[in-house]
Amino acid sequence: MTPPQRDEERPIAALLAPDILALLDESPASVATEVEEMHPADLATVAEAMPRERVPEFLLALPAERAAELLSYLDEELRAELLEEMSPRQAADIVVEMTPDDRVDALEELDDDQAQEIIDELPEEERAETEQLRAYEPDTAGGLMTTEFVSVPQDISAEAALAAVRAAARGERHEAMYAIYITDAAGRLTGVLSLRELLAAPEGARLGDVAWSEVQTVQPTADRETVTRIVQDYDLVAVPVVNTLGRILGVVTVDDAFDAAQEEATEDAQKFGGMEALDEPYSQIGFWNMFKKRAGWLSLLFVGEMFTATALGAYQKEIDRATVLAIFLPLIVSSGGNSGSQGTSLLIRALALREVRLADWWRVAAREIATGLALGSLLAVIGFARIEAWQWMAFKGWSLGILPLGHDYGPNYHMVALTVALSLVGVVTFGTLVGSMLPFAMRRLGFDPASASAPFVATLVDVTGLIIYFQVALHLLLR
Amino acid sequence: MTPPQRDEERPIAALLAPDILALLDESPASVATEVEEMHPADLATVAEAMPRERVPEFLLALPAERAAELLSYLDEELRAELLEEMSPRQAADIVVEMTPDDRVDALEELDDDQAQEIIDELPEEERAETEQLRAYEPDTAGGLMTTEFVSVPQDISAEAALAAVRAAARGERHEAMYAIYITDAAGRLTGVLSLRELLAAPEGARLGDVAWSEVQTVQPTADRETVTRIVQDYDLVAVPVVNTLGRILGVVTVDDAFDAAQEEATEDAQKFGGMEALDEPYSQIGFWNMFKKRAGWLSLLFVGEMFTATALGAYQKEIDRATVLAIFLPLIVSSGGNSGSQGTSLLIRALALREVRLADWWRVAAREIATGLALGSLLAVIGFARIEAWQWMAFKGWSLGILPLGHDYGPNYHMVALTVALSLVGVVTFGTLVGSMLPFAMRRLGFDPASASAPFVATLVDVTGLIIYFQVALHLLLR
Repeated sequence: MTPPQRDEERPIAALLAPDILALLDESPASVATEVEEMHPADLATVAEAMPRERVPEFLLALPAERAAELLSYLDEELRAELLEEMSPRQAADIVVEMTPDDRVDALEELDDDQAQEIIDELPEEERAETEQLRAYEPDTAGGLMTTEFVSVPQDISAEAALAAVRAAARGERHEAMYAIYITDAAGRLTGVLSLRELLAAPEGARLGDVAWSEVQTVQPTADRETVTRIVQDYDLVAVPVVNTLGRILGVVTVDDAFDAAQEEATEDAQKFGGMEALDEPYSQIGFWNMFKKRAGWLSLLFVGEMFTATALGAYQKEIDRATVLAIFLPLIVSSGGNSGSQGTSLLIRALALREVRLADWWRVAAREIATGLALGSLLAVIGFARIEAWQWMAFKGWSLGILPLGHDYGPNYHMVALTVALSLVGVVTFGTLVGSMLPFAMRRLGFDPASASAPFVATLVDVTGLIIYFQVALHLLLR
Repeated sequence: MTPPQRDEERPIAALLAPDILALLDESPASVATEVEEMHPADLATVAEAMPRERVPEFLLALPAERAAELLSYLDEELRAELLEEMSPRQAADIVVEMTPDDRVDALEELDDDQAQEIIDELPEEERAETEQLRAYEPDTAGGLMTTEFVSVPQDISAEAALAAVRAAARGERHEAMYAIYITDAAGRLTGVLSLRELLAAPEGARLGDVAWSEVQTVQPTADRETVTRIVQDYDLVAVPVVNTLGRILGVVTVDDAFDAAQEEATEDAQKFGGMEALDEPYSQIGFWNMFKKRAGWLSLLFVGEMFTATALGAYQKEIDRATVLAIFLPLIVSSGGNSGSQGTSLLIRALALREVRLADWWRVAAREIATGLALGSLLAVIGFARIEAWQWMAFKGWSLGILPLGHDYGPNYHMVALTVALSLVGVVTFGTLVGSMLPFAMRRLGFDPASASAPFVATLVDVTGLIIYFQVALHLLLR
């Protein structure tokens, strides 16, 4: 079969959906053979591309193990629907074949009652491990870990350990086995070695002697960010989750840490955009659910921004005296917001990746004040030149066809230009400082630094920005 | 030794730096033994924590292989400095021990001349592979891959393949070996199996029969985003990079894909914050370098925002007639910017993770218009109530001590409230639509959707926002 044309937008696997539907009609039994070599991620893409009502049929034509793999990669909402449509018995026969962590993720999406019905149909061992894992919060190490891993006693030989790993590889369970954990007689984690190191171990070596005794571990309550940072910093294939007694409860594998890091980045981006993080992909979330996630912050920001109306109300006399001030109002307040947004986005990420620490705040503040002054001066020069140039064009009566060019800012135009320029220096420096300090303040107060969103910073800076502007105007223009 | 107290902010390894300095003074030879069990990431942390001038000493006290591992994890700037201080011969002795991809990354940071001097000191084989890898752009599959991987002919037995893997594990090179690639007589990639599957293969099985024939691959020119998406979607330990003849050039391992994804997310966050992506961590970039990265976009946004001054100049007559309009100006334009920022951050991430495709733009547009109308109506109700309430408090003469409450918006205050409310519906709907469509437009024009920053959207929306506001005012308030 020649491979279908690659389409950047549409995965190849989706193009196979019609072929497989035709096969389902003609010889359902051969479907399993046809898709034997397909990666489960592609199987899931095929299922997502076929008409919704034919998916259950397709799923049932596959062996339980393949159906389980498919479900692990399937769109969460579709997976929940399919499991709800099956009898608890049918669902249990499939989910029992999933790795414990994927099984818990799949059940997580269902009503508690329905999940419990399926769990009740599981064999004893799988039921126990599923209920144990369900007790952890989904975004913690405990919620991300799988309980299928390979651990061996420290006093056996490397050859015996390799035999144990091979037996596990041939078994029914899906152990994470690229890191092998070593335990003492009390079952406490005392070492680790990679499968590569095990294969390289000299004949007859005692395992405890070839393993690494320093093991990076996490507590089951550790948050997702901690888990992904350790996996990334140490280039681990898996990080073991240990309890306070030093016994290993499970492992978080690198693929799950990778997924968790991507989810974290998405949620941070959404928060930085000024909304609550969605817990579902954009294409799947319902209208009102999305509305709620956006309306909360938007209303709060709106209420915050109302202080600009209060402040401007207090300056209404000044505006009456020089309406020219109103003309540059959006320009000045937005410059504060923009420079604040730069500082915030920089420091949210720097804090998330631990490039800077909380204790570095004053060093960052000093640097950002200097940067703010430099950036503010740059904008001040541009702003001053713009006003003088427009005034000059208006004097000269320049025009482009019937469109007059320039603008007459009144007899005090030099003072107008100077007011705008000096305000810009103040507003940009203030914006930069507030924007860069807000993520620190958030973390210090126990919030996610990413909650310091661009709109939040803009709102904070807007009120102060216009106060700076009118104070400068009172001293220069309105003396 | 009791483990030092864990400090969230400061890695344990850093606390060991004074111990190791003491040992360097007393018995330099024993330093290597002392740090034998340390993970190279921790070794790097120790080096970063000690006084800068003592680092070369520390590095030279370690065996070349450990020094190479340390350098792989070290802060990029410090690594470049250290390599520049050594003689090319000394540097070559260390970098030859690095994996080819890490070696190229380390040399990337040096002047071309200095890098070439070190490369010239490498043994023939390493020199050739280093020069080959240096030819690829750093952010492509070719630039991310290592050339050390395990491939075996398809017609050997599984046992023979395992023997080859064990020999590789015991060898000097650092092959990625959790995925084993199968090639035909012409050297073309024909299959893959995981090390786990190889260990589980039945005795005497022919390798070609137990391997998977469908292999996910990338071209050497594939961008970083494509590579990380494939590794993540298929939960791979490595993705092979193949040329047009189907021959495998190297592999990108999951740890490097993970790092690349985190860098990509950081750069996207910085761009979304309205600046150029930094190519170095915040704590390492120089002042003027950082200034340049921020000044470009900030000036551009400032120039764009000047159109608000132009538009307001055109409405100066209207402001003269009703200065009350100026009071609500920042409130209204910022609401457009905030709702636009929400839409943009949502769609940038949804596009990056392929949750929505370019062709979905009209579906997204329809949905965002509906969301914008709903959000705008919500803000309109809040805004209307706020103005009526303040007016009422001013009528009643309420005050808090000496602070008068409320504000008198003049005899037409109902019309003022209505103007603000209707403008909000228009501005928020428009902002939401523009914000959500901008990432699509960016991708369509071949730019990174993340360049559609929050400040960019705010600037785009501000001018239109105030035009909407004054047009509504002309029809209601200023009739």
